Amino acid sequence: MRCEVVAVGTELLLGQIVDTNSAWIGEQLALAGIDCLRHTAVGDNPQRIRLALEESLNRADAVIVTGGLGPTQDDITRDIIAEVMNVEMVQSPELVEIITAKFLGRGRAMPENNLRQADLPRGATAMKEMPGTAPGLVCPVGEKVIYAVPGVPLEMRQMIEGTVIPDLVSRSGEVAAIRSRVLRTWGQSESGLAEMLAEEIERLDGTSGVTLAFLASGMEGLKVRITAKAPTETEVEALLNDEETRVRSIIGPLVFGIDEENMETVVLKELVTQGLTLATAESMTGGLIASRLTDIPGSSQAFLGSVVSYANAVKHEVLNVPDGPVVSEQAVLSMAKGVCEVLGADVSVAVTGVAGPEPQEGNRPGLVWIGTSVDGEVEAVEVRFPYDRTMARQLTVITALDILRRRLIKRAEKN
Amino acid sequence: MRCEVVAVGTELLLGQIVDTNSAWIGEQLALAGIDCLRHTAVGDNPQRIRLALEESLNRADAVIVTGGLGPTQDDITRDIIAEVMNVEMVQSPELVEIITAKFLGRGRAMPENNLRQADLPRGATAMKEMPGTAPGLVCPVGEKVIYAVPGVPLEMRQMIEGTVIPDLVSRSGEVAAIRSRVLRTWGQSESGLAEMLAEEIERLDGTSGVTLAFLASGMEGLKVRITAKAPTETEVEALLNDEETRVRSIIGPLVFGIDEENMETVVLKELVTQGLTLATAESMTGGLIASRLTDIPGSSQAFLGSVVSYANAVKHEVLNVPDGPVVSEQAVLSMAKGVCEVLGADVSVAVTGVAGPEPQEGNRPGLVWIGTSVDGEVEAVEVRFPYDRTMARQLTVITALDILRRRLIKRAEKN
Repeated sequence: MRCEVVAVGTELLLGQIVDTNSAWIGEQLALAGIDCLRHTAVGDNPQRIRLALEESLNRADAVIVTGGLGPTQDDITRDIIAEVMNVEMVQSPELVEIITAKFLGRGRAMPENNLRQADLPRGATAMKEMPGTAPGLVCPVGEKVIYAVPGVPLEMRQMIEGTVIPDLVSRSGEVAAIRSRVLRTWGQSESGLAEMLAEEIERLDGTSGVTLAFLASGMEGLKVRITAKAPTETEVEALLNDEETRVRSIIGPLVFGIDEENMETVVLKELVTQGLTLATAESMTGGLIASRLTDIPGSSQAFLGSVVSYANAVKHEVLNVPDGPVVSEQAVLSMAKGVCEVLGADVSVAVTGVAGPEPQEGNRPGLVWIGTSVDGEVEAVEVRFPYDRTMARQLTVITALDILRRRLIKRAEKN
Repeated sequence: MRCEVVAVGTELLLGQIVDTNSAWIGEQLALAGIDCLRHTAVGDNPQRIRLALEESLNRADAVIVTGGLGPTQDDITRDIIAEVMNVEMVQSPELVEIITAKFLGRGRAMPENNLRQADLPRGATAMKEMPGTAPGLVCPVGEKVIYAVPGVPLEMRQMIEGTVIPDLVSRSGEVAAIRSRVLRTWGQSESGLAEMLAEEIERLDGTSGVTLAFLASGMEGLKVRITAKAPTETEVEALLNDEETRVRSIIGPLVFGIDEENMETVVLKELVTQGLTLATAESMTGGLIASRLTDIPGSSQAFLGSVVSYANAVKHEVLNVPDGPVVSEQAVLSMAKGVCEVLGADVSVAVTGVAGPEPQEGNRPGLVWIGTSVDGEVEAVEVRFPYDRTMARQLTVITALDILRRRLIKRAEKN
């Protein structure tokens, strides 16, 4: 069973709205074990919609089309599907009744236009879900099928979940489940990870039902995604567990989290587990670490606050950084120590560096000193990023928190 | 000149990421007056990528393909383009040098894999923009052209703006100029703005060559986009200037900036002009205001730093907030005053509120107190946001800075 998704709407091509529907439908299809081979977006143009539908129907067994089911003159998806089916449009007395009742129920007169939504291609059936006034349509084309659903996400989702997926699954007769699991990593480049896992990828190649993929996601880390396919949920789960164990045995220490976990949630969880409070002292990142931590609900359980010491005077006077260069090991160690004292925290992260675009104290942009204080012991690490200002700041955030995470894990192992 | 966009990546079909790139590219093409007829997304599969590229190239004069330019084995866009061009792959010594230098600059050894990124189809040229290690490619196919850019938004955007759009415009030879100007506003809802400008939009309707559009952009404000089309650049410029004057005469005080200006750059510029230094005291926003300010190059000219007083103890002990409720007028006034004293700043912004999801001190999430201190005079404003945690934090940032901006403008008018 192969499926394609066609989104109709000139506003999608003009970038006035982002097509989140196709991604959501793609996810539902994947979870149901149905292959989705292509997403297409076209404007509100009869020839181009027809061409897109016919092409998709040639390649696939089923096509899901979103949008163009509204009541206005430029909503033409219904009519184009009738052309593709080579049938005429007929008014459904049942739909006339339902749509009229919806307007009456809201105490509003029905604009004449809305009756267009009661027309459907002969041979098509309306879906039972109908949260708005646009019916979704199941349109058989020979052995294949076109599903038409509105572009309004709420209406679309109810119809996909309630009618389209069950219908596709029963048509496919296949009983396959697909699941993914994402291992979040930090400390290696995408190609470095690929090299470490090259042998494992080769081993999987072929008919194992398991694949590995990499995705660099900036401040969110570098993701290793395991995808498994098998006849049953239980078998899929077993494949995922087995593969996670294998991957961890190769890149173990680089993995900091799974799926929706990110570096902030992982560090906060570790702090809460160990009963520690955290403060940050930020120069180059200018509050970004604190801002990311406090975006997590419940962060107040461990995070006390931050001194953003952007001006040198603030470093010297509030954090007790001694005179001398402020992008240096000495400075970052003092910041890490100072902020623990000022805010009364158990552990801290401190950052000072050259965000750019201009050099500072003779250092090129991208040079960063990261300091951490754990149980009063301060450590400093020098890192370099080749990226632009925004990217350097973002990669500094995840790198600094990862350094703290590793120290926290060591601390737990010792105790 | 007709263009299509092809996005490559199995993760798009599986809905693991939403394809925001195609929407963004669609917007740039529309602004440049180039028709975009279709967006297609395909997985990392050689046959299907090739088919999508060939089909798009049949219908259109130019194809922009995003993704699949990374260093790993599943990044195959380069090779497929060579097949479509019917040429072999050749290694570019110049690219080998550039990519190697990028790794050296970061003080890291280059994985062998990354050299794949120095291969390009014979006859293709690398784009001059190269923020990462993946070069963008301009690939002539007869009279037509394929542009290949990485899927990483930052890299993609630089290449589209710097190379693809100018190249398309020069190829199109069209003599119509299209330009947009964005007025950034804050303080009115989208529908409120639409009502204020309803008469003006009606006046424009038809053949004026000028259109107005609205775009709500969270922390970036509510944008009013003026788009003008005319035979020459000079005429377009005159249309834009005339329309900007008309719009400003209606919604004047709501406009805080133009085009790439945002609330941070506008506030920083005003501070530098008036010779003032700024500090922030942040509880609910947790460093987000400081982080946004320091993302602007040159912010150190006015911004001294921040005390992120997430824990109440930090509010009381570092900022001298008196005992009592911490989400209150009294607390925010003390924070605004306290941070000026602690960091030695001329003006300050302070924020305390309930980010949620849980209520605090009997207040529902979304309640925020914003304080400002200018020349020692403190003021407080209470605002309420109905949004979720992240959205409430973001809208607080732009609201707080807008309050400071208005006070700074009043200050300049008095002096």
